[in-house]
Amino acid sequence: MLLLIPGPVQTRPEVRAVMADDIAPWDDEFRAEYAAMRPRIVAIAGGTPGQHVALPLPGCGHMVVEAAVRTFVPAGGKLLVIQNGNYADRLVRLATEAGRVAIPLKGPDTEPMAPERLAAALEANPGATHVAVVVSETGSGIVNDPNALGEVIRAAGRRLICDAVSGFGALPFRMEDHPECDVVVFTSNKCIEGMPGIGFAVAAVPALEAAQGNAGSWLLDLSDVYRHALVNGWGSFRFTPAVQALRAFRVAMDLYEAEGGQPARLARYARNAEVLYDGLVALGFRPYLEKRHQGPIIVNVHQPADPAWGFKGFITAMKARGVLISNFWNTTTPTIRIACIGAIGEADIRFALDQMRIVLAEMGLGRQAAA
Amino acid sequence: MLLLIPGPVQTRPEVRAVMADDIAPWDDEFRAEYAAMRPRIVAIAGGTPGQHVALPLPGCGHMVVEAAVRTFVPAGGKLLVIQNGNYADRLVRLATEAGRVAIPLKGPDTEPMAPERLAAALEANPGATHVAVVVSETGSGIVNDPNALGEVIRAAGRRLICDAVSGFGALPFRMEDHPECDVVVFTSNKCIEGMPGIGFAVAAVPALEAAQGNAGSWLLDLSDVYRHALVNGWGSFRFTPAVQALRAFRVAMDLYEAEGGQPARLARYARNAEVLYDGLVALGFRPYLEKRHQGPIIVNVHQPADPAWGFKGFITAMKARGVLISNFWNTTTPTIRIACIGAIGEADIRFALDQMRIVLAEMGLGRQAAA
Repeated sequence: MLLLIPGPVQTRPEVRAVMADDIAPWDDEFRAEYAAMRPRIVAIAGGTPGQHVALPLPGCGHMVVEAAVRTFVPAGGKLLVIQNGNYADRLVRLATEAGRVAIPLKGPDTEPMAPERLAAALEANPGATHVAVVVSETGSGIVNDPNALGEVIRAAGRRLICDAVSGFGALPFRMEDHPECDVVVFTSNKCIEGMPGIGFAVAAVPALEAAQGNAGSWLLDLSDVYRHALVNGWGSFRFTPAVQALRAFRVAMDLYEAEGGQPARLARYARNAEVLYDGLVALGFRPYLEKRHQGPIIVNVHQPADPAWGFKGFITAMKARGVLISNFWNTTTPTIRIACIGAIGEADIRFALDQMRIVLAEMGLGRQAAA
Repeated sequence: MLLLIPGPVQTRPEVRAVMADDIAPWDDEFRAEYAAMRPRIVAIAGGTPGQHVALPLPGCGHMVVEAAVRTFVPAGGKLLVIQNGNYADRLVRLATEAGRVAIPLKGPDTEPMAPERLAAALEANPGATHVAVVVSETGSGIVNDPNALGEVIRAAGRRLICDAVSGFGALPFRMEDHPECDVVVFTSNKCIEGMPGIGFAVAAVPALEAAQGNAGSWLLDLSDVYRHALVNGWGSFRFTPAVQALRAFRVAMDLYEAEGGQPARLARYARNAEVLYDGLVALGFRPYLEKRHQGPIIVNVHQPADPAWGFKGFITAMKARGVLISNFWNTTTPTIRIACIGAIGEADIRFALDQMRIVLAEMGLGRQAAA
């Protein structure tokens, strides 16, 4: 089965293979294995040894995002959220339920947030100490540029919480270039192509030290994860992680580095996205985004209006042909979401497009009908 | 390697084998697989269909414990915590950091809490709406009886939060017999013998409905997990779980049921614990607990006072002989903690004891010296 979902992504056999072992997380050998992973994770985040640290949390992406908000923004504190997609909606919700004041900077989910709009919003909201940016919006496929937005945040003397969950390791962002960034968060199962189960934060040490007492949750306190890591000297998990996924992440990092790191990964995904976008257009689908706003993580197209169209039937027929596509969508209008990430390349995308052509024909949807 | 750690436990090959596959969590097939698991989980908890529901959280045991406290005890609310061990200490900490008032009922970590002491504490603390009970204290090895304590809680008109993490599925407790119980929490990697990565709660529906708005955290709101499960009708995960561990839990439940369920599992562990306790005494170790207080999950013995003794050397030598024992302890005085749970039986325990005898002799610790 070819997985074209935006996570958990398709992985390589070497990554999956290490999942089928019992592992004692606090055993000396695994501690050493994990300790060796941490500086590598900092390096992928473009952090500076000693100034940035890698902190794992035993759970999902939402968990590290909520942990980042709670740790760096105190209860009652104000957080400006760039809200131009489904994952930013979720960030507003989680910040609000955590008792933080989320100030939305809204934009359409079809284009990245313009830096000048952020600059104006920060001027209008002097009480907002932090800005949360969802880099890759898996809902629509746009990419908010954390480099350009970070510059605005730095100039305004505010702090950046960078939600890089669906693009980390592929989209360029180096913490060493962003002194305004408190934390970047991501998970094990997206662009590094590991297995699901671990959330990660790479955070700035001075920010962590200043954040003590903010979180209002032991579980979600990244400053405590950091203190714990210092205490035992080995690593930083306080509670039992999905330890198999942690080892799989190590193998995934090996393959990531062997491929050529961030530039190579971005190049492969960008090529996937280009072939997919053009191929879907050729099949008659109408893209959700203009091509200039299309990011390399996921491509969304509108569902055909033709009465012969059936979303469930399409997904089921594609699956029968070996291609698994999401059976739901996160846009306001019905779309089909097809991911470009994971251990997949151009040949896989072309295979998927070929199957789509056949399935559409079987449904009685010709080239014109699909649009 | 034989794992004698209290979790993640040693698993059977059939359980581990299913970890090495990519799985799309929201795919229709996996949703159906998961939907079929949920009533089985309720049944293991002794719940009543329609009145109790199984709710997963994508993370560790601490995560479900904190979620249970936040969901059922509102901010500022009072929770009496039976505090006679390391995991209860942690529960007090997590409740306090979450803004709940934890009222400790302290006892030595060498004996279970007496029901009459709880009755007196509840009378003295009329404002405590809930009682948290850590059933099996992995720190020392005692078991607080949730059946006897639950009766006291029911009589006092209070509610029980049952932290069954390290004993669920082995120690007898049926929710249908405990109308005072809001929730029982556990994880995938203890006595059901699955892989780490998923926390579970089995909760009473009326309590969940009444708890809306309590949690102060979207991630940790079990009432929201419940509402979400109702919405999609299939299951209940809102965020990406360690989905391989979820499937492994299904296989582990198959094996659990095939073995004979709770009575059979308890019998095997109790036999492991008995052979281990007696064997350690025969080797000259002094048990941490009197035999009448020894639970079936983990056996602790004091570390020898002999100058020839070295904890690290002992653990390393045992590992070289194929037996992995915890390299830390959770008691106030130095102990060795050896677990009796996981896919292990009497022969494994006897093998471990044989290796200990050899290692102790190599260390120059004879029968007398070890005590």
